[in-house]
Amino acid sequence: MKRIQVIGIGAGDPEHLTLQAVRAIGATDVFFLLDKGEEKDDLAALRRTILAEHARQPHRVAVVPDPARDRTAATPAYAPAVDDWRRRRADAYERLVLDELAEGECGAFLVWGDPALYDSTLAALEEVHARGTADFTWAVVPGVSSVSALTARHRTTLNQVGRPVRITTGRRLAEEGLPDGPDDIVVMLDARQAFAALAGRGLHIYWGAYLGTPDEILLSGPLDTALAVRISQVREEARARKGWIMDTYLLRRPAGRQ
Amino acid sequence: MKRIQVIGIGAGDPEHLTLQAVRAIGATDVFFLLDKGEEKDDLAALRRTILAEHARQPHRVAVVPDPARDRTAATPAYAPAVDDWRRRRADAYERLVLDELAEGECGAFLVWGDPALYDSTLAALEEVHARGTADFTWAVVPGVSSVSALTARHRTTLNQVGRPVRITTGRRLAEEGLPDGPDDIVVMLDARQAFAALAGRGLHIYWGAYLGTPDEILLSGPLDTALAVRISQVREEARARKGWIMDTYLLRRPAGRQ
Repeated sequence: MKRIQVIGIGAGDPEHLTLQAVRAIGATDVFFLLDKGEEKDDLAALRRTILAEHARQPHRVAVVPDPARDRTAATPAYAPAVDDWRRRRADAYERLVLDELAEGECGAFLVWGDPALYDSTLAALEEVHARGTADFTWAVVPGVSSVSALTARHRTTLNQVGRPVRITTGRRLAEEGLPDGPDDIVVMLDARQAFAALAGRGLHIYWGAYLGTPDEILLSGPLDTALAVRISQVREEARARKGWIMDTYLLRRPAGRQ
Repeated sequence: MKRIQVIGIGAGDPEHLTLQAVRAIGATDVFFLLDKGEEKDDLAALRRTILAEHARQPHRVAVVPDPARDRTAATPAYAPAVDDWRRRRADAYERLVLDELAEGECGAFLVWGDPALYDSTLAALEEVHARGTADFTWAVVPGVSSVSALTARHRTTLNQVGRPVRITTGRRLAEEGLPDGPDDIVVMLDARQAFAALAGRGLHIYWGAYLGTPDEILLSGPLDTALAVRISQVREEARARKGWIMDTYLLRRPAGRQ
């Protein structure tokens, strides 16, 4: 039987690796990489560091091009666009399992953060498995999510006592505005800086970029216009300097204020 | 200066420890334990295992009684009861910092899962620091949350593609019912099995108890009455057998069905 492990490697700090992840990496025959073309050099370097330290030497790496995803689609077309992208991505995964992994071998995907959160690897594997064309088992190694990394660096909690938390995307926050219910909202994948429209509404923001890396930037405070502008400026400067940015933030509404 | 680290040690599997947590534990002079009286033997044993493997030998352990919290209070009294409990808990922490930690030493709290999620250590430390009676710095080491452990063991994601997730408590789910917005709801601290009232509403449940430990139990499927009853029975049997239970679950509403 072919085995596959989907390994969460944490949010950017090589020390976020769990002992379970270290063991899983050490037991891997071949690492699967989806080449995103615009792959960030820093992230690639970080992954190489992890493999140099914890993988068997030598180890195999199998690379396939990651099908491009049309992120410019407006919302109505969003779901079908994602479906199509997922199918093509499953095609790529199927090829990896069929062609690059021998019977009895163990392959691995290294996933930033935790594989459960806004990552498509598990859905793609499930789709490949459902096709029945490749015989394999798979397991998941949980990782430190960027959400946990964010709150740890700000030394704050994710929730207020006994209160709910919402995790959402920048796209949805921009479209839906501030939800009624939750007191704490984590926003991921926000390329449009949806927080800016929420300045002056009594929220506190905890923002972080490049979490866990030497380039980490943290900003926090009451979300007024000045702070919203400052975060946008810092974000743009960093993105221009490094060529990419990965950031996330927590919006806190003090309980009882809604 | 006195230093304190709040270390997330994962959801129950000693291998959930991150390399950062291992290093932090190895750098600790004194470990702070809040004795909850009814402390579960298995959890205490697991923590001893972690200390035996990763702490300096010998190391100091300082124990204070954890102020009891009145969990029977009805909702209107809930917030004040929590405030009172938090103040007494901060008293206990203040005593630890003042009496058990010398200048230049490093103390640590080991927290199950991730310190940001439904844990009061960070709030208590902040309160002690705000009092100004003890001079110390503190840092947080993120951990694998029980949420990540749950989804990993079920090999599922936390969110559907581009959709939001809500993390809430059993108490709130029971009081508020199924929220309109999110497609995926993680429920923690549910002593009343609030999922039972939601059977037959098109939800899928992923339930797990004692995650990451040898006693781990996983159940999942469409949440009909039969599965709700089965989870309740399995839960009660396990609790009776072991004397305690720690469980969590994910409720998934297939996107587009709301």
